[in-house]
Order: sequence, then structure tokens, then C-alpha cells
Amino acid sequence: MPRYRMTIEYDGRGFVGWQRQDNGLGVQEAVETAVAAFSGETAQVFAAGRTDAGVHAEGQVGHVDLTKDWPAETVRDALNFHLRGHPVSIVTATRAAEDFHARFSATGRAYRYRILNRRPPPALKAGQVWWVAPPLNAEAMAEAARVLIGHHDFTSFRAQQCQSNSPVKTLDRLDVVREGEEVVIHAAARSFLHHQVRNMVGSLKWVGEGRWTARHIKDALDARDRAAGGPTAPAEGLCLTAVTYPDD
Amino acid sequence: MPRYRMTIEYDGRGFVGWQRQDNGLGVQEAVETAVAAFSGETAQVFAAGRTDAGVHAEGQVGHVDLTKDWPAETVRDALNFHLRGHPVSIVTATRAAEDFHARFSATGRAYRYRILNRRPPPALKAGQVWWVAPPLNAEAMAEAARVLIGHHDFTSFRAQQCQSNSPVKTLDRLDVVREGEEVVIHAAARSFLHHQVRNMVGSLKWVGEGRWTARHIKDALDARDRAAGGPTAPAEGLCLTAVTYPDD
Repeated sequence: MPRYRMTIEYDGRGFVGWQRQDNGLGVQEAVETAVAAFSGETAQVFAAGRTDAGVHAEGQVGHVDLTKDWPAETVRDALNFHLRGHPVSIVTATRAAEDFHARFSATGRAYRYRILNRRPPPALKAGQVWWVAPPLNAEAMAEAARVLIGHHDFTSFRAQQCQSNSPVKTLDRLDVVREGEEVVIHAAARSFLHHQVRNMVGSLKWVGEGRWTARHIKDALDARDRAAGGPTAPAEGLCLTAVTYPDD
Repeated sequence: MPRYRMTIEYDGRGFVGWQRQDNGLGVQEAVETAVAAFSGETAQVFAAGRTDAGVHAEGQVGHVDLTKDWPAETVRDALNFHLRGHPVSIVTATRAAEDFHARFSATGRAYRYRILNRRPPPALKAGQVWWVAPPLNAEAMAEAARVLIGHHDFTSFRAQQCQSNSPVKTLDRLDVVREGEEVVIHAAARSFLHHQVRNMVGSLKWVGEGRWTARHIKDALDARDRAAGGPTAPAEGLCLTAVTYPDD
């Protein structure tokens, strides 16, 4: 069966997350419904990252198998037609190799976390940033972030409901940069634990406020205990920006 | 009476525009309601630009007179408290001179118009861009835009309901730049006619599609007839970014 690979963009507001769930609409269900409406086929769509409720994506990658050999552009355009009304867009669709798997073939995931750091609340950026009013020291956050880069046991930054076999991950990138009114955090790794980015951001925010230092981040990491980590940053500031594959 | 000057940011979706109207909520009414809730005073809020329904603002400027001499930060924070739930934010509030008038003292207005120029529809940028699927030639648009810069009779780009005394305006800036998937138009002038930016953008889009050239823009301008101009671009791509005053 022809396999199609898709780059998917979505606004996480109004979705219960990527995965199909009983308590509301998942992005997966929206895309699968569009697949059925277009092709008449009931097919499962697999994604690289199972984003949580409210988390956005610019570069989610998914794949789906269809029995018919459609031009990839037709798949993209037909899915977008049937997705109208939902804040989901199939940015690209291409034919993929039979052994390509959006989740298991992925060798890297990149996320961006946006903090709007100003006293007035967001208006135009509402729902796409975490609003933090007190001034944050982005340089201190950047320094503390470097403590987390590398191969570590990230238990202290892992959600209790995380289903990963191991808490050990290699964090390749964790940059903190101020961009005007925003403090933007870029994170990249082969894979992340559940809530790992949001838990790291919540801890770095404490550093930015002066409540914690890089030393506290190190101690939290070493404790290997979720209770030693900082709070979970809200979903709305997070966006899955890119997924990489060996053949790209 | 103390006069307060405010920089106001809003998402134009869900508003009938800046001005109070009978058919829905105007941004003005939202701010005036917050003023009343905070101060107990019924005061009119004046703005530099009466943006249309769906048009956004990052840098709208308004002023309001209150009988009491509040610290300006208190005005800003209290208005934001009472505006919660609305996509409106008072970004700054300062004490202004008695003769400062948000509209009549303004010597410059700057707008940005964002076109998302790609075949897949917007998801994360929905409501903040004009989605144009066919590839646009931004360089041709930029060249044609230069025809419009300067002191001209802009009747061909003026809404029929425009209440300006004269169709003659001086356009100081009309830049067109490609930024990745977007074509962004920056316009600046002392003041604009009603729908002028959107009508210029609609005409430039025809140039970008190859349907018109700079010559057609020149002919349209010279015709001094709205029927000779191109279509009106939708409100959602437009944002009032800044208003300037002589004392700034």
C-alpha cells in the first residue's frame, strides 16, 4: 500500500492533543476523518510526537497508508479541503518508503517554547505564549539551561504518567534567547519524556525570576525525583517545530 | 482633568472594529467599559485610527480623561484587569499633556499587511494573514508599490463610505518584502483614506499574480475612480503597528 508522509501544522487550542480520546477532538481524529472523507478509507494516521492538549505544531510529521496510488499533491489538497473549519493544515504530503514510520524512524524532535515576558497581558499572541509578568533574566536562564544539555536521567523533569521505558535521554539543544518582549526557548533531542520540555521551562522560569540558580537546576537533575524539579509550564507556549529523519 | 495616553493591542477578530456600534462589540466599548468598572467614570476613549472589523492593532494609541489623578501604571493594570476575557491589552499608559489628542495630534500611522503565500491554508496564523495560494512575485509587487509612494489623489483606492474631506494624501512608505512563506507589506503615512491600505494591497496582489503590472497601478491611480482600482484585501491581514506624534 502506498504510504504518504505529511508535515502537519495545527493550533493546539480546541484539541485534546494529538491522540484520539473520548473527552474531545484530537488532531489525529480530525485528520483521520478528513482521510476517510477524501478516500473513503478508514486509515490510522501515525505521528512523530503525541503533543498534549493545547500544544501547537508547525512541523508535526505523520504518515498514513492508502490503498490507492494518489498523486501526493492531491492527498495534501484533498485533506486540506476536508479539514477546513479546523485549525489544522497539511503543509506537505509526499510518497514515503514502505518502511518509513513517522514515529519510529524519527531521529530528532525540535520544540520552541515562547514566554511573553511583559506586564501587560497578551492580546494578539493569546494562546500561543506563556504570559509571565515579572522581568526574567534570560541570560541566567540560558546559563542554567546548559546544565541540562547532554546525556542524563531526566526523572526530575518527567511527568508521572510518562510511558517511556527509560528516563535517560540525550538533550542536544536547550537555548534561551530574549527576542524583544519574548523569552524563547529552543529544545532539541532524539526524543523527549512526557512533559520534559514544559517541566524544564517551568524550572528555568524560576531561574529567570531569581528564585533558583543554575545550581538548583543541577541539584534537581541529580535528585532524579519529579518532586525536586520545578513546575510544569503551560501547554500554550509550546510548539513542535520540526522532526528529523535519517534520509532527509 | 488628567489625560491618559494608552498604547493598545488587540486581536480584531470578534470585534466590529474600533468604534462603538449597535451591531456588536467595538474595541472602544470594551475599553470604555473597563474604564467605568475601574474608575466609576463614564469617559470616552479616543483613538488614532478607527480600525475596521477584523483589523488588528499592536500599536493603536488612545486617550481618556479621568477626574482623578491616578498613577499611570495603576490605570494600565486596572484596565487590563477589567479587560480580561477580551483580546485587548493596554500595553502602556502614561500621563499626557492637556492638548494631546490621540487622533488629531498624530503625525504618522504605520500599518503592516501579512499575506500567507502558500498552497496549504493557515493553521497557526489563521485570522492574522490573508491566505493567497498562487505564488506571488514579491519583487514585481515592490516595484509597483513605488508608483503609489508620494503625494497623490488616492480616489481609486478609497472606500465609497470614506468620510475624509480630501482624497489627496502623502504616502511615505509602501514596502513589499518576502519573508519565507509570507509577503509582508509595510505602509506609512500621516493619515490614510478609509480602506486605502487594503485597496492598495488588493491591487498589488493582482501585480503579484501577473494579472497587472506597475503600469496598471499607475493607470488606476491616474483614473481617480474607485472602479479602476483593484479589489479590497480582507481585514484579517491588516495590523495598525504604530502611531507617531511630534513630541515622541
